[in-house]
Amino acid sequence: MTGSDKDTDLSETPTPRGRGGRRASGGAAARRAARSGAKRAAAMPYITRRVPVYEVLDEEALARIEANADTVLEEVGIEFRDDEEALRLWKDAGADIRGQRVHFPKGLCRELLKTAPSVFTQHARNPERNVQIGGDATVFAPVYGPPFVRDLEGERRYATIEDFRNFVKLAYMAPSMHHSGGTVCEPVDIPVNKRHLDMVYSHIRYSDKPFMGSVTAPDRAEDTVAMCRILFGEQFVDNNTVVINLINANSPMVFDDTMLGAAKVYARANQACIVSPFILAGAMSPVTVAGTLTQILAEVMAGAAFTQLVRPGAPVLFGTFAASISMQSGAPTFGTPEPALVSYGAAQLARRLGLPFRTGGSLCGSKVPDAQAAHESANTLNTTLLAGTNFALHSAGWLEGGLVACFEKFMIDVDQLGMQQRFAEGVDMSETSLAMDAIREVGPGNHYLGCDHTRANFENAFYRSLIADNNSFEQWDMEGRKPAEQRANALARKWLENYEAPALDEGIDEALQAYIRQRKEAMPDAFG
Amino acid sequence: MTGSDKDTDLSETPTPRGRGGRRASGGAAARRAARSGAKRAAAMPYITRRVPVYEVLDEEALARIEANADTVLEEVGIEFRDDEEALRLWKDAGADIRGQRVHFPKGLCRELLKTAPSVFTQHARNPERNVQIGGDATVFAPVYGPPFVRDLEGERRYATIEDFRNFVKLAYMAPSMHHSGGTVCEPVDIPVNKRHLDMVYSHIRYSDKPFMGSVTAPDRAEDTVAMCRILFGEQFVDNNTVVINLINANSPMVFDDTMLGAAKVYARANQACIVSPFILAGAMSPVTVAGTLTQILAEVMAGAAFTQLVRPGAPVLFGTFAASISMQSGAPTFGTPEPALVSYGAAQLARRLGLPFRTGGSLCGSKVPDAQAAHESANTLNTTLLAGTNFALHSAGWLEGGLVACFEKFMIDVDQLGMQQRFAEGVDMSETSLAMDAIREVGPGNHYLGCDHTRANFENAFYRSLIADNNSFEQWDMEGRKPAEQRANALARKWLENYEAPALDEGIDEALQAYIRQRKEAMPDAFG
Repeated sequence: MTGSDKDTDLSETPTPRGRGGRRASGGAAARRAARSGAKRAAAMPYITRRVPVYEVLDEEALARIEANADTVLEEVGIEFRDDEEALRLWKDAGADIRGQRVHFPKGLCRELLKTAPSVFTQHARNPERNVQIGGDATVFAPVYGPPFVRDLEGERRYATIEDFRNFVKLAYMAPSMHHSGGTVCEPVDIPVNKRHLDMVYSHIRYSDKPFMGSVTAPDRAEDTVAMCRILFGEQFVDNNTVVINLINANSPMVFDDTMLGAAKVYARANQACIVSPFILAGAMSPVTVAGTLTQILAEVMAGAAFTQLVRPGAPVLFGTFAASISMQSGAPTFGTPEPALVSYGAAQLARRLGLPFRTGGSLCGSKVPDAQAAHESANTLNTTLLAGTNFALHSAGWLEGGLVACFEKFMIDVDQLGMQQRFAEGVDMSETSLAMDAIREVGPGNHYLGCDHTRANFENAFYRSLIADNNSFEQWDMEGRKPAEQRANALARKWLENYEAPALDEGIDEALQAYIRQRKEAMPDAFG
Repeated sequence: MTGSDKDTDLSETPTPRGRGGRRASGGAAARRAARSGAKRAAAMPYITRRVPVYEVLDEEALARIEANADTVLEEVGIEFRDDEEALRLWKDAGADIRGQRVHFPKGLCRELLKTAPSVFTQHARNPERNVQIGGDATVFAPVYGPPFVRDLEGERRYATIEDFRNFVKLAYMAPSMHHSGGTVCEPVDIPVNKRHLDMVYSHIRYSDKPFMGSVTAPDRAEDTVAMCRILFGEQFVDNNTVVINLINANSPMVFDDTMLGAAKVYARANQACIVSPFILAGAMSPVTVAGTLTQILAEVMAGAAFTQLVRPGAPVLFGTFAASISMQSGAPTFGTPEPALVSYGAAQLARRLGLPFRTGGSLCGSKVPDAQAAHESANTLNTTLLAGTNFALHSAGWLEGGLVACFEKFMIDVDQLGMQQRFAEGVDMSETSLAMDAIREVGPGNHYLGCDHTRANFENAFYRSLIADNNSFEQWDMEGRKPAEQRANALARKWLENYEAPALDEGIDEALQAYIRQRKEAMPDAFG
């Protein structure tokens, strides 16, 4: 049981598997590729869940929340702020407009949402990295939004474009990270009005996985779409979804002009919007789970239906960011039971509405990748998968309530994503897996270590952690008593060292760079 | 969102709740009691699950595994070693005995198990601490078995009786720890043939929660029952279950005379046995999930049915200890996907057999309470609750694959147990929780922090962590940048400082001490 444990070989990556629980033929090859830093990263396709979803609300509870959300939509209404066009669209659709507040006749939003697809494909520049959004698929995407990083020297500082690129590279190399994400951190060394160009370019240049667009101003959304057209071709972008975008509600019950502007750009271009109330329960929503679910449903129905007013059939997700606040200090808290109940409930409401669902990830409030970070992240991530979440932002790297993107946490998290992916394959019930021959061969009092069945099946039998040290205490002591975060640090350095960019057509690359140059030249620098 | 966060007030304990999701009237009082170290610990009753179980196997898969287990029982058989009485009992019951191996006609074990109760009560000396074993109840018990401790100075050393008592005290004080457990650590400073007396006495003296008995020799089991008779009265022990005992199968497919001897003592005395294959898959069972489940079911059916041969109606649990081994080094691994699938599947098999189920806890392979420890523990613990586990040994304090009992880990884990208990209450669908008044009162663009509904409901709205630091980075920095394990250390010291023993009848105490003295005088010292 002791001695050197190869599980902690830092050059290893988890064993990729083929779709549907069968082993990919390239398992060992993919591991070698990851070790050598070959051009093709050892990616696993998105998760196709073969285990059931977990549900916490019964039919009566769901119907009650839905009826109450309809009441909120009709009686309280939702504000669509500083956007005349939005109000006009709602008026034409039959809503009752009072000032900036839209009151929705019962059934209007639900009717509009009938044109939204329940499943769609987001295309990547490498078709092998295409992801399904919706149905029994789960797609993991990295942390989104932090202005700070915790770097590999352990310093907490403002993020730069180099940090941004490094997170893109690590996400590219992580087998169970299916998506390159969006603002993996804020590159604050680049003017705020220009940095979206560098972010989108970095996703395209340093990864071949699907990515997210800018939502901080309508013209930045336009830039994102323009760059996608250069990358994929105009026709392709018109007919396919190539970018997915985070449209936060300004909870409670407000959409502001920035988010509405971006939503309109993307919906018009047939690109995907995640309409996502950002909820710290007790502040942005009622202090209770059922009340929070009611408000979330009302907000999502209004925002998602709006995308269908803009362009019927545009892909849209039911999003939920669920956390609580400490009622003593006002600090946000993560990984606690109440947000888990919110996420499970919201997933059920999304399925009944026929929309793909986004929640969760690896959320935590800790300042360092310690036991607090891990417990909070694990509680959130287990919920994310079992809820049947289709798109999981913040799946790796999130620290300190989203203020910090952390490289060590990123590595610890992607290891956990690999475990979730394996779990989602469920129980193999083949004759081989049932193993009656092995039980007969071994018999009472012996062991299975050397039996034929074990030798034939051990290679991919168990998930091999990238981070866990299962050596003896003596071995671990001799190797310097490294805790998990130190092993994660070494792994991140190793991956970055071995990174090689996926090939990108030179003509496209030049066209992208020319577009960025031209756009930047037309802008003054803006910070803040 | 920043400033001092009272959530990290180390004197706090989680808010107790009444049964069935209603708040206990003594919530604040119980917190005050815990703070002041009052005689009555702020205990929460065992969990009554109001959320569904999660299941990974369909009817066809379950029937297949059951049919295969029947085949294993009949064709391969199970060894009952060095116990003539056991073989005779099986022969009389109609089994086919070949040497020490028992072959079971199809249906025999299942028929015998019809007399085993699916739900029973384990009584505690304080009736408020009685626990239900089975049905929709979940009972958390501490770590079991470690020869080493990681003490509050961070030293890893052999455990002593003082460590043992300290874990009993902490378990007594932890609101979501429903049980005092058994060998919370091995007090190796006491001779091996005598220490069971001091262990059982410590559970009785320093706690009033239910506890476990000795299984390391039949006469130690007899001592346990004798001490229970002194504590509860002879008549009461004959008619009620007052002690629960871990009977490990010697997997694959063997029960040895030590465990059989203890099982016979307890079953005859109407006390509960947990028949529990100890499985490191790939060594003690096939390298696959379905094969492992087949063997577990066969072993449990044989062992549990044996208790019914000894005394029909004696309480018995379907136990499963599920871990894998690294096929590279042979080291056991925890918190990975395969053992989770085993636990979920075994829980389903137990329900179909009508037996209460034991698995899981907060298992990990880490040497320190770091992110690895937390991730592995969280993965195991989430599975434990959602599987519908009735008795969860190792719920707090387990480190290094069970070799070490750790005080810091104990505190971190009991915090997580509180979260599980809260989660299990499910979603409150009362009018108050639906919060339509709050949504109407607050309206778009405002916040809920000061509204009537929030003020009326915030106190027990969200689980308050004992360990998490949700303060701002600046505050955390100023306070010395303490990671979770340091906060856990301070909390353990504080609890131990504030501990006060529950009252114990002096006559009973003297009788117990006299029994122990007399028994010890009759034995030579034995170490080893």
